[in-house]
Amino acid sequence: MPEPVVLVLDADPSPRLGRLTGRARVLRTDAAGLAARLPESDVLLVWDFTSDAVREAWPGEGRRPRWVHTASAGVDRLLCPELVASDTVLTNARGIFERPIAEYVAGLVLAFAKDLPTTLALQRERRWHHREGQQVAGSRAVVVGAGPIGREITRLLHGLGVQVALVGRSARRTIHGVEDLGPLAARADWVISAVPLTPSTYGMFDTRFFGLLQPSARFINVGRGASVVEADLVQALNRRWLAGAALDVFAAEPLAPDSPLWDVPGLLVSPHLSGDTVGWRDRLGEQFVAMYELWADGGPLPNVVDKQRGYVPSTDNSAEEEGASPE
Amino acid sequence: MPEPVVLVLDADPSPRLGRLTGRARVLRTDAAGLAARLPESDVLLVWDFTSDAVREAWPGEGRRPRWVHTASAGVDRLLCPELVASDTVLTNARGIFERPIAEYVAGLVLAFAKDLPTTLALQRERRWHHREGQQVAGSRAVVVGAGPIGREITRLLHGLGVQVALVGRSARRTIHGVEDLGPLAARADWVISAVPLTPSTYGMFDTRFFGLLQPSARFINVGRGASVVEADLVQALNRRWLAGAALDVFAAEPLAPDSPLWDVPGLLVSPHLSGDTVGWRDRLGEQFVAMYELWADGGPLPNVVDKQRGYVPSTDNSAEEEGASPE
Repeated sequence: MPEPVVLVLDADPSPRLGRLTGRARVLRTDAAGLAARLPESDVLLVWDFTSDAVREAWPGEGRRPRWVHTASAGVDRLLCPELVASDTVLTNARGIFERPIAEYVAGLVLAFAKDLPTTLALQRERRWHHREGQQVAGSRAVVVGAGPIGREITRLLHGLGVQVALVGRSARRTIHGVEDLGPLAARADWVISAVPLTPSTYGMFDTRFFGLLQPSARFINVGRGASVVEADLVQALNRRWLAGAALDVFAAEPLAPDSPLWDVPGLLVSPHLSGDTVGWRDRLGEQFVAMYELWADGGPLPNVVDKQRGYVPSTDNSAEEEGASPE
Repeated sequence: MPEPVVLVLDADPSPRLGRLTGRARVLRTDAAGLAARLPESDVLLVWDFTSDAVREAWPGEGRRPRWVHTASAGVDRLLCPELVASDTVLTNARGIFERPIAEYVAGLVLAFAKDLPTTLALQRERRWHHREGQQVAGSRAVVVGAGPIGREITRLLHGLGVQVALVGRSARRTIHGVEDLGPLAARADWVISAVPLTPSTYGMFDTRFFGLLQPSARFINVGRGASVVEADLVQALNRRWLAGAALDVFAAEPLAPDSPLWDVPGLLVSPHLSGDTVGWRDRLGEQFVAMYELWADGGPLPNVVDKQRGYVPSTDNSAEEEGASPE
């Protein structure tokens, strides 16, 4: 039996796949070459997860890979009706991004509470100006998105003494249903989004939502940019409906140099890096190799995405999960 | 019996001492009037803890208060030989600053790990530049100063998954003696000082010490400024002996506008605010009132400073503690 063909939608730096030598024939392509290579491939590794190349190339002619793995948590940029309807198995990088993103969120919460951006600005002006910070312990957070990333954020903030409510699609056990989001957000100091991008989360953070918040609240998005109506957030910040916000993800990335988002008072902009800590690409490559070995041996794959829902449902039986989706 | 006289070395805003009505006669003074009022006072509340007024006024003529309470953790600015030798009881504000300072340190650690200052600088330039952060979980910290503040910092960092070694004056139980500081610092990602200012901590962080650190290490001082030889830290940062530092305390405060410390690359300067969260002055006032009621009833006072050592020794029998000293 010939070696299966693994097609890599490549990006710089490439994944290290040396361990697959003798077990797979590895081909690499860029977005332009993807459509032509799909019919000859058994497996597609979406190493460059920052484009719409898969969604655009998939609907064409010919055979399709039996398995697609994306080196990201979110799958929104891959899904097209033809892929959803196919028998192809789609997996994601669950397990890699949870802790870094949770640390990033905890860092933002503490930086806001201690007013670190103002401290840095005053330092540039050589001004000694004492201010009072906020105590994080005892403050209230709502984490929206009950997937592994939202749950790790919840765990870490809880460890800092924050009272955290976790909101998922539907209520179960310790998770609130989305119908509780309004009342919870209305008394929260921190609202953190780690939702995947699906039809039901698209544009969910809008003027109506920001109108519910306390003037002292801060909003943090590490999920997907298009869940926020960016113009509504800008307006809400300008009207001081909330005290601040931090966006790590945007409807269009990279954010254009002339975007109005760069200099909204109270808005912290970061370039989609919350999940990316030193060594992350190596960890993503190792995860794929380990999954490939399972697949080649005929075993079941972990991290299988429910293509209809657009995220990985729970693998245990305790609760349905919503795979939050940074990267 | 006449009401005891409580003299307040005042600052704006004044403490709320209404609960003492009928139990004490409250007098207020500034630094200039302190010496004249000391002989007629039973209790001195050092509400303005930012000057050397007590150390300067104390050695004069006449009777002295039997009890001095400072609304700060550190007592280094109060102590003069005459006060140390006297029967006067000195107490501090243990219990107020621990958690805020620990949160502040955790915020700095996360901000450094996630390179937040660079993110803010790039945002001002409207530049989308992806970088990799560091994972805090699994990193190594040394906390110097095993008083309640150092121990709270240790607890909070441990909760973030940091491997923390706590260093005190002498080894006991889970606390390392100062003789371990060098080897521990040499492999630390974070070195955090929460030491009180005493003869043995004065200038302890110097060229010799910074020479031990890893080039990737960061140094954070929330203890007392004079424990750091500031010129040595500047030189070490300029030589890239360490990756960064954050100072919340300085040998001379407020830091002068022409201080070279304001614009050292990699050095974050904050105006002695790590312990000060909204409501802190109210909490300090309430603590003093509660202690006054104990004292007036003849009960023993908590938070009694060992004036020879310059900090509050342990109140339980488990371990000697070193009262760290921000504020």
